[in-house]
Amino acid sequence: MVPSKPLILISNDDGYTAKGIKELAGFLCDMADIVIVAPDGPRSGMAAAITSQVPVTFTLVSCLPGLSVYRCTGTPVDCIKLGLEAVVSRWPDLVIGGINHGDNSAVNVHYSGTMGVVLEGCMKGIPSIGFSVCDHDPDLDFSPTRDYIRRIVRQVLEEGLPEGACLNVNFPEKAPYEGVKVCRQTVGRWENEWVSSPHPRGGGDIYWLTGHFANHEPEAIDTDRWALDHGYVAITPTQVDMTAYGLLEKMKKNYEILSHCR
Amino acid sequence: MVPSKPLILISNDDGYTAKGIKELAGFLCDMADIVIVAPDGPRSGMAAAITSQVPVTFTLVSCLPGLSVYRCTGTPVDCIKLGLEAVVSRWPDLVIGGINHGDNSAVNVHYSGTMGVVLEGCMKGIPSIGFSVCDHDPDLDFSPTRDYIRRIVRQVLEEGLPEGACLNVNFPEKAPYEGVKVCRQTVGRWENEWVSSPHPRGGGDIYWLTGHFANHEPEAIDTDRWALDHGYVAITPTQVDMTAYGLLEKMKKNYEILSHCR
Repeated sequence: MVPSKPLILISNDDGYTAKGIKELAGFLCDMADIVIVAPDGPRSGMAAAITSQVPVTFTLVSCLPGLSVYRCTGTPVDCIKLGLEAVVSRWPDLVIGGINHGDNSAVNVHYSGTMGVVLEGCMKGIPSIGFSVCDHDPDLDFSPTRDYIRRIVRQVLEEGLPEGACLNVNFPEKAPYEGVKVCRQTVGRWENEWVSSPHPRGGGDIYWLTGHFANHEPEAIDTDRWALDHGYVAITPTQVDMTAYGLLEKMKKNYEILSHCR
Repeated sequence: MVPSKPLILISNDDGYTAKGIKELAGFLCDMADIVIVAPDGPRSGMAAAITSQVPVTFTLVSCLPGLSVYRCTGTPVDCIKLGLEAVVSRWPDLVIGGINHGDNSAVNVHYSGTMGVVLEGCMKGIPSIGFSVCDHDPDLDFSPTRDYIRRIVRQVLEEGLPEGACLNVNFPEKAPYEGVKVCRQTVGRWENEWVSSPHPRGGGDIYWLTGHFANHEPEAIDTDRWALDHGYVAITPTQVDMTAYGLLEKMKKNYEILSHCR
């Protein structure tokens, strides 16, 4: 029997109780069967980390027709790996990370547990999308994202995505949005990242990660930061292949000398 | 006064006591001043994770002329961020991750804490290199890697690397090596990743991450896995920009409809 609805596997890095993941399931539950396998607590900034030193477990939290929720002791990527191998009863048509409470544009793609989820789905050959809002408020009103998310999900369910490519979708802090821009990743870097204070029990300082993102190309209208700064929903097509092809061609000549270093 | 030697900031994901990082410092200490800021224990598979929920500290372990070692409670990426902002007295000429006990070729670049170090150095605008050996033995003989590492480091110190690009260098399990290949990242995926057993205290199963890497293009001689499988040192130029440019161009047309979804 062919299932009547597509299956979407959802995870995040804010944990299974976060408002963003619940809202996402609510936005999509009429369009698809949904399985959530999400961390049992906050895993922000976990990137594509995997749990290699200890075992991982998962537990069923709730089961409604078309919507099952599991919490998992592992990382966001573990949730997808384990979800695919031990939880879902059929292969998902889509993997989604989010909706993340916080910005995953520009270089944040590297630190993001949400995008870890998405890259993992993509590496498994499943069309995968990350949704994030540039606001950390745990009680954020996600309703302005609803129609955008439904249209993007519908389009990807219908058309798929090329092998090895996924979507990193970020919503501006303020709604209503100006529309959608398909963008490239902004060049820039985090600066002044640490706030230190003396350790309360003495013996040195403690350091909290914070910082400011310096956009090195604020005028570049084809970037995700430009889109977000100007009120647009930013869709950044993102790929698993991190090869620097320009440098590769240049190096093939330079490094020939090393071939004889034995 | 101009320092007489370049400064290299080194970290890893196996921890500051791992043999690989000690050997690396030994290979390079006549060429450069070295500062090691490395995790205080194993952080394998931590990718580019950052510590966002708790503060981080670091402690001086040893200080010799030209070689200082600090251990840090954070992730590999935290070590570089904190090393740059709170430890080094001048801006490093090079950031190195490694020598890692284990393979970081192909899609492993996404999970690797060693490559997290390297991407972080690269994002900070510093030429950055990761060195890994395809062998997890904690007592591995790293001596076959020495001359290769010294030549690659010397070349990068002299010539630099393009902004936003870094090197992921992997050594085969068996020496002597056949030479060097400059490669692209292999396409493939991890399969059968979990080994489960009943929880010793009951109540369900526990899952250990393991698995097998399925190379989807074993005949492609321009890939890092091919190089390693045939005895070559694989240098994979790697970049911070993860934009899928091919998909971007295609999508710019398809998603115009969304511009009017307000």
